[in-house]
Amino acid sequence: MSANDGEVKLVMAYIRPDKLGDVKKALADVGAPSITVTSVSGRGSQPARKGQYRGEEYTVDLHQKTKVECVVADIPAEDVVAAIVEGAKTGEPGDGKVFVLPVESATQIRTDKTGPEAV
Amino acid sequence: MSANDGEVKLVMAYIRPDKLGDVKKALADVGAPSITVTSVSGRGSQPARKGQYRGEEYTVDLHQKTKVECVVADIPAEDVVAAIVEGAKTGEPGDGKVFVLPVESATQIRTDKTGPEAV
Amino acid sequence: MSANDGEVKLVMAYIRPDKLGDVKKALADVGAPSITVTSVSGRGSQPARKGQYRGEEYTVDLHQKTKVECVVADIPAEDVVAAIVEGAKTGEPGDGKVFVLPVESATQIRTDKTGPEAV
Ligand SMILES: Nc1ncnc2c1ncn2[C@@H]1O[C@H](COP(=O)(O)OP(=O)(O)OP(=O)(O)O)[C@@H](O)[C@H]1O
Ligand SMILES: Nc1ncnc2c1ncn2[C@@H]1O[C@H](COP(=O)(O)OP(=O)(O)OP(=O)(O)O)[C@@H](O)[C@H]1O
Ligand SMILES: Nc1ncnc2c1ncn2[C@@H]1O[C@H](COP(=O)(O)OP(=O)(O)OP(=O)(O)O)[C@@H](O)[C@H]1O
Ligand SMILES: [Mg+2]
Ligand SMILES: [Mg+2]
Ligand SMILES: [Mg+2]
Repeated sequence: MSANDGEVKLVMAYIRPDKLGDVKKALADVGAPSITVTSVSGRGSQPARKGQYRGEEYTVDLHQKTKVECVVADIPAEDVVAAIVEGAKTGEPGDGKVFVLPVESATQIRTDKTGPEAV
Repeated sequence: MSANDGEVKLVMAYIRPDKLGDVKKALADVGAPSITVTSVSGRGSQPARKGQYRGEEYTVDLHQKTKVECVVADIPAEDVVAAIVEGAKTGEPGDGKVFVLPVESATQIRTDKTGPEAV
Repeated sequence: MSANDGEVKLVMAYIRPDKLGDVKKALADVGAPSITVTSVSGRGSQPARKGQYRGEEYTVDLHQKTKVECVVADIPAEDVVAAIVEGAKTGEPGDGKVFVLPVESATQIRTDKTGPEAV
């Protein structure tokens, strides 16, 4: 149990919505199937894209994305990040980002278990 | 003011949507009424559930859940966790999890106050 | 590169939905245009508001809000907080809060870059 030095980590990713299936599969393969998914919108570093609709110009500056949260204890956070990158990559701009945050405590509601076993 | 050793904490929970009312009541009772709620979907450690719809087999692998975020300073994070567990528990699989994350700074937008008083 | 002492930070704000445009502009001006936006609902410290609808009394206790997440490395988190406050403030109750959380690792999915350059 030296994964993450015994600590709990929140791996948080912003990905393309149509890559969620591949990311779920990659996470299950690495032993981290428990996830929470949120519909979000966002923008990265590219300038806003201009379009035309019925003769009107408009600007698309927020794109639909999917946020995936995966809290892990026994699986190294870096393996989870690698799985998400593998599942989410197309190589085109807009593929997204993965961030890891520290978690100080974890509790499983059904059992009152706390710590790494709760995750 | 030794709650959380003067630090600010983010208590983040994934719960059953129909337990939100009980969780809100439990949080208000413990003195932590300020919350943010997000509709999410997720899966825990149980294998995906298979179903039938008009003769077609399908797999339910993401269930509707509710995310509750509650940032606290003067109320101990462990009291907030206990209140959420009390409000959210049914004893059946799927009750959810509660995580505590460190917060380095807090600002109330209306007043420009920062630190524990801003929370 | 001494912004944030070389560390990565997650700036997370709950704001009024109709202030998102001003906040996006303020963030772009300070050099932090990359954001993720989520529709949320929430309550602050004010007691729930009572209303009447067709003779029935009801209580509004969760208000529509917008969550903005902005991960930064080279821009000081305090500048990002100040930009959000500037964009989001009306001076009336309900303007929201801004929190800063530590981020331990960052990866750009398209390039596999990690660390501050990935943000
Ligand atoms: N620094 C950030 N803070 C918050 N959200 C971000 C950040 N960077 C990216 N995102 C989220 O990830 C989504 C995809 O970002 P994107 O992949 O376009 O980033 P990028 O830096 O422009 O990289 P690329 O050059 O590969 O497009 C955005 O729409 C946004 O939701
Ligand atoms: N490790 C995790 N990371 C991210 N989200 C999680 C994690 N574990 C649970 N969740 C969220 O909590 C919800 C409920 O999880 P659940 O209670 O089924 O967890 P569990 O570990 O299977 O526990 P139980 O055996 O009591 O069902 C999931 O649908 C998901 O949204
Ligand atoms: N401590 C908190 N934890 C989680 N979310 C919060 C917290 N405080 C505020 N929020 C979120 O911010 C939104 C706006 O809060 P609000 O500005 O009303 O806070 P407040 O403390 O009551 O300040 P004010 O007196 O200026 O109204 C809430 O609806 C909620 O979504
Ligand atoms: Mg981009
Ligand atoms: Mg479960
Ligand atoms: Mg208020």
